[in-house]
Amino acid sequence: MTSAEANVTVAAIQMEPVFGQTEHNVARSIAMIETAAAQGAQVVVLPELCNTGYMFQSRAEAAALAEPVPAGTSTQAWIEAARRLGLYIVAGITESQGALLYNSAVIIGPDGYMGTYRKLHLWGDEALYFTPGDLGVPIFDTPLGRLSCHICYDCWFPEVWRLQAMQGAELICVPTNWVPIPGQDPDREAMANIVVMGAAHCNSLFVIAADRVGTERGQPFIGQSLIVSQTGWPVAGPASNIAEELLLATINLADARRKRNWNDFNQPLRDRRTDLYDEMLGSVLPRGMI
Amino acid sequence: MTSAEANVTVAAIQMEPVFGQTEHNVARSIAMIETAAAQGAQVVVLPELCNTGYMFQSRAEAAALAEPVPAGTSTQAWIEAARRLGLYIVAGITESQGALLYNSAVIIGPDGYMGTYRKLHLWGDEALYFTPGDLGVPIFDTPLGRLSCHICYDCWFPEVWRLQAMQGAELICVPTNWVPIPGQDPDREAMANIVVMGAAHCNSLFVIAADRVGTERGQPFIGQSLIVSQTGWPVAGPASNIAEELLLATINLADARRKRNWNDFNQPLRDRRTDLYDEMLGSVLPRGMI
Repeated sequence: MTSAEANVTVAAIQMEPVFGQTEHNVARSIAMIETAAAQGAQVVVLPELCNTGYMFQSRAEAAALAEPVPAGTSTQAWIEAARRLGLYIVAGITESQGALLYNSAVIIGPDGYMGTYRKLHLWGDEALYFTPGDLGVPIFDTPLGRLSCHICYDCWFPEVWRLQAMQGAELICVPTNWVPIPGQDPDREAMANIVVMGAAHCNSLFVIAADRVGTERGQPFIGQSLIVSQTGWPVAGPASNIAEELLLATINLADARRKRNWNDFNQPLRDRRTDLYDEMLGSVLPRGMI
Repeated sequence: MTSAEANVTVAAIQMEPVFGQTEHNVARSIAMIETAAAQGAQVVVLPELCNTGYMFQSRAEAAALAEPVPAGTSTQAWIEAARRLGLYIVAGITESQGALLYNSAVIIGPDGYMGTYRKLHLWGDEALYFTPGDLGVPIFDTPLGRLSCHICYDCWFPEVWRLQAMQGAELICVPTNWVPIPGQDPDREAMANIVVMGAAHCNSLFVIAADRVGTERGQPFIGQSLIVSQTGWPVAGPASNIAEELLLATINLADARRKRNWNDFNQPLRDRRTDLYDEMLGSVLPRGMI
């Protein structure tokens, strides 16, 4: 049995950051990580911008709360926790690099800082504060399997999931701050969950989506974090839409690869008609029909 | 008010073809189209391969049932119905072109034959009988709006939906023959529906998915046809998983375009990071990590 065959226990930490209270938020996140670790978690995912909160009112306010990665205190605290608890942490963070700000996720392992993902597709007022991600869609190889990461509105771009799957990712960690969207039926699950489930299924990937809850400066967030298997079906959650909650699931990342062969003929990533779309997706854009 | 502003009544015809009984099947489809027309339908979608049934046991058997398009009797019967009833029909058909067979959909308007879509991604044993589609992802401009079409397993390829949306499509007609898939929880809706809903939402497209029901030569089909708005939420269905059923909905195709602007900053088709993926989606393939 190779390490890729081992079961992995993963966690989504649904929490409620308090705007601007970075020290409190990171401490709260670490308390919840400790709870997850006590239940066997080896990979834990925290929400988007969970160290600072989300609802900046000016670029100056965002800049004042942003930290360099990995030197900043939030990342250093998570590095210490990951080392002490022997697990992987993917955490949403307000990042600064000189004068530039990014909506980022730090990827940290038991041996320390591994890398950063910077949100590629900014949502709403984020465009006023943050620079769009410039680090592509990186894959992080670990003894547990191949991890990748994206943030909130990135989920709406199937190209991102495809790039991750085609680079060999097995587990996608999604820090998010989902907000209510038009057309949402309150009696049904969140469309965000539908998007995540469909993408997991079509790409044969496990997904951990860790959302926040609470209302911040008038903006409600919808919770409903979930952990999804490569079938597209949840193995934990959706969580509450209002309360903090810890989701845990034990999954076998090898399933993401071995069970991609849906029958004697079909494997969804190999069945792509690259003769058509990798050329056409570029060529249709100038038509200006959107 | 331009024609694009008008409401359009659309229908998904969930039926049970009888294998090999082409004349019966086409007559049954037209009877259901007439019922839809009597309720105001202007666009009707029929299931995949609905003139012949699906479970071929040899290429010779498929060839014997296949017809040239538009000269064959099935297409001619639908052309007559579309003309008489003044509506659009998108119908799954077993197509022959010389020695080649295709899993196709014919697109027919009140003025006659408009074009053909040939399934790009073949599922299972279809690969033994059919040639993969060679007509790309065409868009059909009509006074009602811009229609496009794909078939069953094509839904699992987000590239197809993106190509349709980026070429200006507003309504996607999906003839399908969905089968049970691994991991399906019988207490939840079909993963096929999740995939369709997520794709409609992420691409701001209306979708009519017309499935078949019944068990043919041992293969069950799952029904659950649906009509989805550009929000991703169903406006009709999901239909029964066992019985024939007619779904109708009145929709405004202009919503697919006007309501793509989700806020002051975001429109999901314009927010694509073409700097990243149209190049990367090609370049990652040789890595061989899938």
